[in-house]
Amino acid sequence: MEYVVSDKVKTLKPSAIREIFKYAADPSVVSLSAGNPAPEAFPTKAIAEISADILANDPIGALQYSVTEGYPPLRSAVWDYMTKKFGVGSEDDDIIITSGAQQVMDLFTKTTCNEGDTVICEAPSFIGSLNSFRSFNCKLCGIPLESDGMDLNALEKALQTEKNVRFIYIIANFQNPSGVTTSLEKRKAIYELAKKYNVMILEDNPYGELRIAGEDVPCIKSLDKDGIVVYAGSFSKVLSPGMRLGYVIAPKPVIQKMVVCKQGEDVHTNSWAQMVAHRFMTEYDFEAHLSSLRTIYKKKADFCMELLDKYLVPSGISYQKIEGGLFIWCRLPDDAKISMTEFCKQAVLNKVCVVPGNAFLTDEAEQCSSFRINFSTPTDEQLEKGIKILGKLASEVL
Amino acid sequence: MEYVVSDKVKTLKPSAIREIFKYAADPSVVSLSAGNPAPEAFPTKAIAEISADILANDPIGALQYSVTEGYPPLRSAVWDYMTKKFGVGSEDDDIIITSGAQQVMDLFTKTTCNEGDTVICEAPSFIGSLNSFRSFNCKLCGIPLESDGMDLNALEKALQTEKNVRFIYIIANFQNPSGVTTSLEKRKAIYELAKKYNVMILEDNPYGELRIAGEDVPCIKSLDKDGIVVYAGSFSKVLSPGMRLGYVIAPKPVIQKMVVCKQGEDVHTNSWAQMVAHRFMTEYDFEAHLSSLRTIYKKKADFCMELLDKYLVPSGISYQKIEGGLFIWCRLPDDAKISMTEFCKQAVLNKVCVVPGNAFLTDEAEQCSSFRINFSTPTDEQLEKGIKILGKLASEVL
Repeated sequence: MEYVVSDKVKTLKPSAIREIFKYAADPSVVSLSAGNPAPEAFPTKAIAEISADILANDPIGALQYSVTEGYPPLRSAVWDYMTKKFGVGSEDDDIIITSGAQQVMDLFTKTTCNEGDTVICEAPSFIGSLNSFRSFNCKLCGIPLESDGMDLNALEKALQTEKNVRFIYIIANFQNPSGVTTSLEKRKAIYELAKKYNVMILEDNPYGELRIAGEDVPCIKSLDKDGIVVYAGSFSKVLSPGMRLGYVIAPKPVIQKMVVCKQGEDVHTNSWAQMVAHRFMTEYDFEAHLSSLRTIYKKKADFCMELLDKYLVPSGISYQKIEGGLFIWCRLPDDAKISMTEFCKQAVLNKVCVVPGNAFLTDEAEQCSSFRINFSTPTDEQLEKGIKILGKLASEVL
Repeated sequence: MEYVVSDKVKTLKPSAIREIFKYAADPSVVSLSAGNPAPEAFPTKAIAEISADILANDPIGALQYSVTEGYPPLRSAVWDYMTKKFGVGSEDDDIIITSGAQQVMDLFTKTTCNEGDTVICEAPSFIGSLNSFRSFNCKLCGIPLESDGMDLNALEKALQTEKNVRFIYIIANFQNPSGVTTSLEKRKAIYELAKKYNVMILEDNPYGELRIAGEDVPCIKSLDKDGIVVYAGSFSKVLSPGMRLGYVIAPKPVIQKMVVCKQGEDVHTNSWAQMVAHRFMTEYDFEAHLSSLRTIYKKKADFCMELLDKYLVPSGISYQKIEGGLFIWCRLPDDAKISMTEFCKQAVLNKVCVVPGNAFLTDEAEQCSSFRINFSTPTDEQLEKGIKILGKLASEVL
């Protein structure tokens, strides 16, 4: 049978990262290509305790159907936390617990975009979100990232010239893949531009709690006086990605449509996970846990940057120091003798796997001289081994 | 701000059932409107044991990112079970674990349908699936259900006259809401018609294991020699709906596209739930558990039908005896003095809640003289109280 494929899905391809994971699955290959939390970052003991208690005392609550909006005590706990700590959420907003923040990208795009509508995003940006936008046949318009956020001139030009722009997608803290944090000035400017051109902002903040240096910058959503910002939060980096727990805080009319779409998509998010997250946030020392995560990732990030300085920088590879998150964006020198993609291929042949930067562009065929390194997943030994190999390769081929 | 809503979502409304749940939440109202498994149907002790073991011995496996296709041991276990027990799945097929069977409706529609394409379904049919199809702006074409399945003449006529029909959606066993089981003859005929008119079949089978009388009828998917059937399975009625676990067995090219869409939708399904289900299927006596469920539901269904015979039938309300599932479809007499919707409203005012049948039609404004009763969620006492009230009301107003 000739299978009919919808226009929106026809050109959709598995993400390039997935293809790379095939190499990374080879145990002899050092993978610096993932984005998993470090194994030591999971509060496994607390989760086991809470889970046992829930399954002993309220098993039906954890196993029965629940409401689409999410487990009410978790909605309240997240709402209190986000409004008090970050000023995210006003009386015109509401919250849904989602099946990971990834589902926020899906639900908001579905709710807002017709096929052919435009989504403005950072270039580079997170491939999972780009693919979600693509899966609704949105046109992606990438705005070059500078060291403090999007190029504002390019952004305003895009807002003036692109048709049916529905929203600006932004990861303002420790962006994936670039590691860039958007400055407060640029956050304000992007907000004003969105308002001026009557488009919304989808602010995705999975790494915000993982700051290892510098000062917190207010969320764009905390500046939202006009009801134009949709905020996507995640438990993946602060509790567990396998639980698939995220949330969205957005203007009530947007939330109402997203709830109806979620109902038709997965009815509600896994109840057990929601109950565990609620108990962990409210009965354990959540701030102490976050602080321990920052200690873990600061150590790993600092170690990684030391290795980069020692082994890659001498060959002309450069990178911007990060202040948080899980990724470092490395750039080949302008006079490199081989292309970035060729460098990444050679790296895999030498048993170390990084992600070619063009995977994160709106058009993968575009030129890109950067690649992404992850330091949260590998052990210190793997990190050192992998970066040494990259350094040797760089000294030979660049 | 004037929020832009996509064409596909613009007309989407929260399901009528949800509105009814608002009344049902009032503790003084007897709810016969839900579709939840009976509380005593959950293997809570086994789940607690397995969960404790997983969180003690492989916590990172349960909490870390996993693959989009699903936890490999669960994929294998479900595959083996479905191929051996039901002949569902061939060498041209593959399987994905989904976040409930609801996600199969979403992913398959997204993969296959452009806006305006037609989905043929039974009339009445499951509102959650209808809303999922609607959320992609599909045109719904309902085929009247007879006591042994769809009206084949109406089906062939629809296949001849409707434009861009992409698939036929069917719940062949103990259909929600009608309770109807499609006969083997009709299953074969529907399969041949789909083949003749080059459309696919989406076979949704959440209740198949809950047969309380009669003989199993082969799944349509087990007849599939041409790679035209997509089979949606669910753990919601046989293990736990709160876990949000379902699966799809479909031709490989369809599965490949669905995997890419799932990646952009929720990355993967909750890992803990997948691991628990795998251990429950393979290390516990799954068949004995299913058998105990059938005992529970046979008792409840038989009791419910006795009550209907005693309290409703004398007033002219009729229903078709069921052989399984969770629902009974009751029909007002042709000469009823009030409409079905008015009857349901009066019922709520008298503190018993059922679902008006038109909620399950492709066009809710259409005439319908039936309503749906659920017997799995209420206790025996609640069931008796509720049906007595309905009987009193019927004797007064019909």
